[in-house]
Amino acid sequence: MTWKEKVHEVIYEADTKAGKVFDIALLIVIVASLVLVILDSVEYISLQYHSLFVTLEWIITIFFTIEYILRVISIKKPKNYIFSFYGIVDFLSTVPLYISLVFAGSGALLSLRALRLLRVFRIFKLVRYSGAGSSVAIALRNSVPKILIFLYSVVIISFIAGTIMYIVEGPEHGYTSIPRGIYWAIVTLTTVGFGDIHPITPLGQFIATIIMLLGYGIIAVPTGIVTAEMAKENFRKNTQVCSNCGENDHRDSAEFCHKCGYSLNKRQQEKEIENED
Amino acid sequence: MTWKEKVHEVIYEADTKAGKVFDIALLIVIVASLVLVILDSVEYISLQYHSLFVTLEWIITIFFTIEYILRVISIKKPKNYIFSFYGIVDFLSTVPLYISLVFAGSGALLSLRALRLLRVFRIFKLVRYSGAGSSVAIALRNSVPKILIFLYSVVIISFIAGTIMYIVEGPEHGYTSIPRGIYWAIVTLTTVGFGDIHPITPLGQFIATIIMLLGYGIIAVPTGIVTAEMAKENFRKNTQVCSNCGENDHRDSAEFCHKCGYSLNKRQQEKEIENED
Amino acid sequence: MTWKEKVHEVIYEADTKAGKVFDIALLIVIVASLVLVILDSVEYISLQYHSLFVTLEWIITIFFTIEYILRVISIKKPKNYIFSFYGIVDFLSTVPLYISLVFAGSGALLSLRALRLLRVFRIFKLVRYSGAGSSVAIALRNSVPKILIFLYSVVIISFIAGTIMYIVEGPEHGYTSIPRGIYWAIVTLTTVGFGDIHPITPLGQFIATIIMLLGYGIIAVPTGIVTAEMAKENFRKNTQVCSNCGENDHRDSAEFCHKCGYSLNKRQQEKEIENED
Amino acid sequence: MTWKEKVHEVIYEADTKAGKVFDIALLIVIVASLVLVILDSVEYISLQYHSLFVTLEWIITIFFTIEYILRVISIKKPKNYIFSFYGIVDFLSTVPLYISLVFAGSGALLSLRALRLLRVFRIFKLVRYSGAGSSVAIALRNSVPKILIFLYSVVIISFIAGTIMYIVEGPEHGYTSIPRGIYWAIVTLTTVGFGDIHPITPLGQFIATIIMLLGYGIIAVPTGIVTAEMAKENFRKNTQVCSNCGENDHRDSAEFCHKCGYSLNKRQQEKEIENED
Repeated sequence: MTWKEKVHEVIYEADTKAGKVFDIALLIVIVASLVLVILDSVEYISLQYHSLFVTLEWIITIFFTIEYILRVISIKKPKNYIFSFYGIVDFLSTVPLYISLVFAGSGALLSLRALRLLRVFRIFKLVRYSGAGSSVAIALRNSVPKILIFLYSVVIISFIAGTIMYIVEGPEHGYTSIPRGIYWAIVTLTTVGFGDIHPITPLGQFIATIIMLLGYGIIAVPTGIVTAEMAKENFRKNTQVCSNCGENDHRDSAEFCHKCGYSLNKRQQEKEIENED
Repeated sequence: MTWKEKVHEVIYEADTKAGKVFDIALLIVIVASLVLVILDSVEYISLQYHSLFVTLEWIITIFFTIEYILRVISIKKPKNYIFSFYGIVDFLSTVPLYISLVFAGSGALLSLRALRLLRVFRIFKLVRYSGAGSSVAIALRNSVPKILIFLYSVVIISFIAGTIMYIVEGPEHGYTSIPRGIYWAIVTLTTVGFGDIHPITPLGQFIATIIMLLGYGIIAVPTGIVTAEMAKENFRKNTQVCSNCGENDHRDSAEFCHKCGYSLNKRQQEKEIENED
Repeated sequence: MTWKEKVHEVIYEADTKAGKVFDIALLIVIVASLVLVILDSVEYISLQYHSLFVTLEWIITIFFTIEYILRVISIKKPKNYIFSFYGIVDFLSTVPLYISLVFAGSGALLSLRALRLLRVFRIFKLVRYSGAGSSVAIALRNSVPKILIFLYSVVIISFIAGTIMYIVEGPEHGYTSIPRGIYWAIVTLTTVGFGDIHPITPLGQFIATIIMLLGYGIIAVPTGIVTAEMAKENFRKNTQVCSNCGENDHRDSAEFCHKCGYSLNKRQQEKEIENED
Repeated sequence: MTWKEKVHEVIYEADTKAGKVFDIALLIVIVASLVLVILDSVEYISLQYHSLFVTLEWIITIFFTIEYILRVISIKKPKNYIFSFYGIVDFLSTVPLYISLVFAGSGALLSLRALRLLRVFRIFKLVRYSGAGSSVAIALRNSVPKILIFLYSVVIISFIAGTIMYIVEGPEHGYTSIPRGIYWAIVTLTTVGFGDIHPITPLGQFIATIIMLLGYGIIAVPTGIVTAEMAKENFRKNTQVCSNCGENDHRDSAEFCHKCGYSLNKRQQEKEIENED
């Protein structure tokens, strides 16, 4: 085992102790780098601890640089990593400080550093395969096509509602264009209700009333879709596996496999075997 | 096959290749015409690209005109189309530009053009019959009578709440009339909460508190109705009756009865009978 | 049959044709009287049609007076009606105009007339027994104890959250007292969010964030309660009745009554009888 | 039985009549003390009834003091109580008035008195074990791991959305820092929508639109989780196993197996066995 293989094991796999330690260390540095970006955006904190923040930024950048170089070196086909989603994210979350040395514009620096946020998906990936998440994830994946049709309907309704309100209320009441009307319609349909734009004419308020009742009613649709999928998932979990064909989606009360007709009842199977002799 | 029949096949049916191409082309033109209406409503875009927009508007209007004429000519009983919902929508979304040539009022023109939005239902129609949508649609259709009773209750509660708030808060706090009180009650019950009108007296705030808790609680009702219908729909899809024991609660993928192991597949049953002979 | 008995039949019962006509006429007058109260509250309408409204008000009041007198005369024990819920509502929705003749204060008149809104419950009563409503009503009635515990929890959380925000934000940011803090907490927890009061300090905004996430999460609880009850109601409807003991809450796959052990399978019952012979 | 044992029975147990009376008396005093704290925070009430409030505050404090001393004396191992959650809460909700005698700062007094709110958990404890609450509580406890993963996802989305909006809208439109952007993102995702900060640029409004649709859609997730758990709980309550055929999916009220008709009632089974001998 060469040192490259060892590094590969530590960085890319989580089986060994060293691999787990590395994963947790990386997670801490990612979270720390995010906290840094967030705190740096608060002006009075940023001004007070400027030099501390610059130092920490350099430490994190160097850590990310070493990690990036090791990832590239230790893998057999570096291209696979470099042009993967995580490869690009890792690169983009490392370079901002180096760029800021060359180009003086520190304003753009921050925007680039915020790309580091995409790194959280790496943490997300760790969580995704935990027990509790997986059944929810399956139910959600099954809901996606239905949810998309629902969202399509919501967007169509918002287009119609936004256009009507633009005509009814007009620019003098804040509905300055159809896109702005659509923005208001989505704010209202989703029951967010900022109140930055709101109907003023009686007719506009009457139409708004209908849109609100619609939004209040149709929230039941995605909820119904996801809940029905989750309930299905709950039932699917309580199942037996057919010893003949391996089918595993049986009803609670099933005594025979619905796929091959083989008995699911072990004792009965043994009896059948005995009878055959 | 006359040319009228050929045109009919292309425009009204989606079985042939030409029919599919026409449907997609129409869909693109409809979406383009909507984007045009929307962008034209944004003042600074509208001013900058005025002549481009006028040109595009004419191209779309001519396309719609040709489509409308062909639809009328190719159908056997033109009245059936002309006075149908889609016939009227097609007519209304074609004429605005011609009207604006005769009457100079371009302000009213826009409002008429927005009727083109109703054309999206034609796209909607294409989606409606897709697999994912249909089971949701069935569940929703079954929920309609229950949802209507629910909405009736919400409206009654809003009338009572709006009247109480009009009396308690009065015109000096924005509740200038009972309809305005009802508008506020619906804004509150549906948890939208614009904040354009809000209670100021302690008593008004106390009543608002109760209305909000009510709204927060009763959102469970439409959700419960739709979810229960969808769960039912999930189970309903899986029903075949076993011709041997009469069991009727089989899974979708079941090929054998889970109770007696008898084949649910008719053809296979017939084969088995043949073999027995 | 005396004329009193005939009047009783028309007013109190809905079996005869005359009874149905009376019910619908009453319903129309109630709705008309409500529309009158609502329109009269809109200042510019009220000023324009003042004399028309006064006339209509008198017509409705006279109709209600006659109805009230007939109800009292035609019933055997008038006290049963007069002191019932509907008796009091009918009385209170009739007298305001007479009172305004004696006392000149027309401002208080309106408030009294609004009591007429309670009459809508009479319409509500007509709807309640329709098919679609009843299964929803049963599910809701079963949910009440669980929902009350949920609302109790929400109120407790609001008390704690409101007190914390009062201490953290203080009167200078709009949280002038603990009740006002509680009002804000309920506005936030129920996701209404008027925005009349909102946190300004970073700590207040952080606590608000937690309250909002809590409110967003716990809306699942009433929804879950009602949905589970409705799903239960759906299953209960699909059942067999035991021919021995009358129990009707059997599982889909049940072959024997779970209460008395009697066979639910008719054919099998007949076989058993044959065997006994 | 010494007097200490008697006091212990009254204070710590709810089996005897005296114990129940004490529990209810304590509950009333706790609620009264809370009402006092709340009313005292309303300035105009506080000024008017100042001396009354001081007197009541002393009465409640003396009651709590006696209760605390009795709790400490009557228990065998006082440390177990003193350093328990309720011991600390009881102590902290008793001392504020004594502290205010020593230190003059009455402003801090109120903040300390508000700790008394934590006492409501004692009332909460009484409710928790009631029938209706327990099945909801079990369903909620089972939902916790899934809900936490969901909330983690919501927080991650809020971080990303908040950072994007900080970059897009910037400090001049109210998004003065990333934490403020995250605060806005949570206000929007949870559909609260205060409106204290809201997007102004078209791009910001477009991104807000996506965040709102996301928040409107993902509310289905916790709802689905809790509902599925509650539906499960509804079914789980009804499980006994038939000692004859092993069927385990019986109704709550089942006395006989719905599959084989065998009695599910143990005592009755034994009787049947006796009769067979």
